[in-house]
Amino acid sequence: MHSRFTPGGRSIRRMSDQTNYEKPPADYTDLRAIYINCSLKPTPQQSHTQGLMDRSINIMRKQGVQLDVVRFADHDVATGVYPDMREHGAATDAWPEDLWPRVQAADILVVGTPIWLGEISSLGRQLIERLYAMGSMTNDKGQYIYYGKVGGAIVTGNEDGVKNVARHVLYSLQHIGYTIPPGAEAGWIGPVGPGPSYLDPEAEGPKTDFTNQHVTFMTWNLLHLARMFKDAGGLPSYGNDGNAWQKGERFGFEAYP
Amino acid sequence: MHSRFTPGGRSIRRMSDQTNYEKPPADYTDLRAIYINCSLKPTPQQSHTQGLMDRSINIMRKQGVQLDVVRFADHDVATGVYPDMREHGAATDAWPEDLWPRVQAADILVVGTPIWLGEISSLGRQLIERLYAMGSMTNDKGQYIYYGKVGGAIVTGNEDGVKNVARHVLYSLQHIGYTIPPGAEAGWIGPVGPGPSYLDPEAEGPKTDFTNQHVTFMTWNLLHLARMFKDAGGLPSYGNDGNAWQKGERFGFEAYP
Amino acid sequence: MHSRFTPGGRSIRRMSDQTNYEKPPADYTDLRAIYINCSLKPTPQQSHTQGLMDRSINIMRKQGVQLDVVRFADHDVATGVYPDMREHGAATDAWPEDLWPRVQAADILVVGTPIWLGEISSLGRQLIERLYAMGSMTNDKGQYIYYGKVGGAIVTGNEDGVKNVARHVLYSLQHIGYTIPPGAEAGWIGPVGPGPSYLDPEAEGPKTDFTNQHVTFMTWNLLHLARMFKDAGGLPSYGNDGNAWQKGERFGFEAYP
Amino acid sequence: MHSRFTPGGRSIRRMSDQTNYEKPPADYTDLRAIYINCSLKPTPQQSHTQGLMDRSINIMRKQGVQLDVVRFADHDVATGVYPDMREHGAATDAWPEDLWPRVQAADILVVGTPIWLGEISSLGRQLIERLYAMGSMTNDKGQYIYYGKVGGAIVTGNEDGVKNVARHVLYSLQHIGYTIPPGAEAGWIGPVGPGPSYLDPEAEGPKTDFTNQHVTFMTWNLLHLARMFKDAGGLPSYGNDGNAWQKGERFGFEAYP
Repeated sequence: MHSRFTPGGRSIRRMSDQTNYEKPPADYTDLRAIYINCSLKPTPQQSHTQGLMDRSINIMRKQGVQLDVVRFADHDVATGVYPDMREHGAATDAWPEDLWPRVQAADILVVGTPIWLGEISSLGRQLIERLYAMGSMTNDKGQYIYYGKVGGAIVTGNEDGVKNVARHVLYSLQHIGYTIPPGAEAGWIGPVGPGPSYLDPEAEGPKTDFTNQHVTFMTWNLLHLARMFKDAGGLPSYGNDGNAWQKGERFGFEAYP
Repeated sequence: MHSRFTPGGRSIRRMSDQTNYEKPPADYTDLRAIYINCSLKPTPQQSHTQGLMDRSINIMRKQGVQLDVVRFADHDVATGVYPDMREHGAATDAWPEDLWPRVQAADILVVGTPIWLGEISSLGRQLIERLYAMGSMTNDKGQYIYYGKVGGAIVTGNEDGVKNVARHVLYSLQHIGYTIPPGAEAGWIGPVGPGPSYLDPEAEGPKTDFTNQHVTFMTWNLLHLARMFKDAGGLPSYGNDGNAWQKGERFGFEAYP
Repeated sequence: MHSRFTPGGRSIRRMSDQTNYEKPPADYTDLRAIYINCSLKPTPQQSHTQGLMDRSINIMRKQGVQLDVVRFADHDVATGVYPDMREHGAATDAWPEDLWPRVQAADILVVGTPIWLGEISSLGRQLIERLYAMGSMTNDKGQYIYYGKVGGAIVTGNEDGVKNVARHVLYSLQHIGYTIPPGAEAGWIGPVGPGPSYLDPEAEGPKTDFTNQHVTFMTWNLLHLARMFKDAGGLPSYGNDGNAWQKGERFGFEAYP
Repeated sequence: MHSRFTPGGRSIRRMSDQTNYEKPPADYTDLRAIYINCSLKPTPQQSHTQGLMDRSINIMRKQGVQLDVVRFADHDVATGVYPDMREHGAATDAWPEDLWPRVQAADILVVGTPIWLGEISSLGRQLIERLYAMGSMTNDKGQYIYYGKVGGAIVTGNEDGVKNVARHVLYSLQHIGYTIPPGAEAGWIGPVGPGPSYLDPEAEGPKTDFTNQHVTFMTWNLLHLARMFKDAGGLPSYGNDGNAWQKGERFGFEAYP
């Protein structure tokens, strides 16, 4: 999906000034990341999307990042847009006590989803609805609860739709407060039409250099930005404190400049 | 567009720990921002999108940010996906020498576009095509040229489409290397159906508290993140250096972990 | 959503040659229509989307169309992309025996959905996944099972997203075999930002002439096209018979003309 | 793009009742079709999208359909949303006298576009803006000018985006009055990542059975529906006559049923 259009084969690349990468520029063991796989299939069924997510997870694991991996379909999450649907008629709801605290504790959220008819899975939509429903929560700075966290998307299908689905996920995350680093998406699809999926032997998905590069870049960009936020204590609240705005603070905004 | 769904009116907000905002947390006079308005109308025709963009620009101006404001329709930009279309048959092309150096010099890019039939304007698409065409350029670290820059979107229409258009813009920007801060979108639309536009007196667009809050938050989040990148020298190139990847460096990635 | 842009106020309309519409051009009592509301709320909770759907339903009822109205959230539909998820581990699945036969029996399908964060509801996505899963079925002519049926979309929210959500629904329906008549979408949203919903008294949704016109046009266009298909026995199978294609029939197609 | 998901390999297909297809069910020589290619490249540059469009055109040619094939980039079309941009400051505008009469004369419109960064080309957007700008015109029945016409989309790229782009085109067409037959889209893309395009020898695009089937089905479905409309004199104006609605006719609609 991250096609790198090379104009007329004319390379404008300059050499990197860094000649070796013996070790990463920082320690990441204090960071927490949660990977939520919105495959329609519960465990133990094979999820091709999980297959690609595992490549990203492996990079973080080797850096000692505290990892939490969730198969959304394994949890009895209720449908709706309230923090706790049990207060709105649902018999059970795994979101408020099981999943939400884990999302809230994580510095990094990676949403994985398969592609169906070119779009995000229904479970992916449901996850976004539940994340959105927490949107009135704020942190100690009066910022929306997701400020200072970073988000990414991993998408697989047997044909067509990675960009459209990643767009859906990444837009939603930045909208509610996540920061989106460069190329925060990785995906794999086969040629047009039905065909093998990522983990199917004949697909040789894991040998796709293009996908491998992008899942690697995505993973590191999530780590770099999460590192920056952790060290900086997130984003300053000047100009984005909802409470202050409600109290009349305008941070320099003028309706009629 | 950034609707803040308040679950059952139940407020989970905690008070901000900061009780006053006498002044911003940093100096922004060394930052450069470019605002590109993709209205279909050239100057001196009134652009409602420019009207909303001006609210954001005014906040930056008061902080001493170095500003560059472009009406895309005023420039004779050629159609195509090469850095310089004059090398591919175009008689003229304002992109390579007029606009591109200004985009490259800016730490912050804000793309403004009207909504037509629920989508981005054709000039907005053309801008994205030209930005995309520079995608093979890298910076001194071997990263894509847009790394370390931040992007946002401002959208207006007389009805429906802010989110869809912002999604289009923000996704494209992160895809080529921009970082997208939280709520990096602001927009204004009227009720469903034809009606007045943002600057029409009867619309009272600039009195829309919702839009005002979001254009303010967007503007400050762009400033905060650009400040962080400027101070940090951008993002580390570990894990995202395309040249190194081509040379075989894998940054911990394993195809079969 | 169906904004009618009037170029420069310059009216190019000609008078209709029909001066009165005493009665419809046909009888519609042999047609069946199913309206599926993908609100996240089960009955008896109020659904604003149902409110708008009811305006369309009322028009069809007065024509004697055989109506079936479904609140998707009331049915225990399993998640997945197989015709019967009970064969794939689901304890229960209301789709194959409860809902599918009703969809299959209908000449007209109208999908209703609310807007959440600018997108279709998760239940809307789930419905499309289940419709898609029947895509390998064919009718007596060897055409995909949805050929000869017509589809439309009804969307409501408190702000922004009608076009994007209608696009999602209508595209999916035509993709699997439905025919989409002109303006097969109707919707209602309020001004930008949180606000009242369609049926809230202060919103006065049902007084929105724009929405009323479009829900009326949509309803009649669905009826007209369904009437044409019913009378013609659907679409000819020449050029779209999947079985014949598999047997080698090419209907005039040449790979290298 | 029209992936036919076969549930568990379990075939529910019944044999077609038609055992041979010696000849089409009708004569199509009185139909007019216009194919507009929104490639960013003017002639004589090779357009891969044209390559796929030619497969559809060839089928219609063999049926004696009156064909008009346009490379949009070859025409000096002005930017804007008025019927004639020369009345709004444009020095020239090929739309009103050159292209529009040809669109208006055609029963069938097929929009072809390449994929750039997962989206429609800027010229594709411009075409839609110009089509949209004629939206206030009505036919002799008081219907929007595009009523009774049918539309389709043909999309190519080297990777990912056919569905998203087709969705954009088909939604826009139905919105302004076109009818969309089943599977009114055909496309070709290669595997994920940069690679050869449709007509590149190594791509063997024209040998893609999946794409071939769908371009064939699309072409015939456009012909079948155009034939039905031609024979029926388009759609009845009962329930969709904008002039009558303005005069107070409600066609059975009740705001408060």
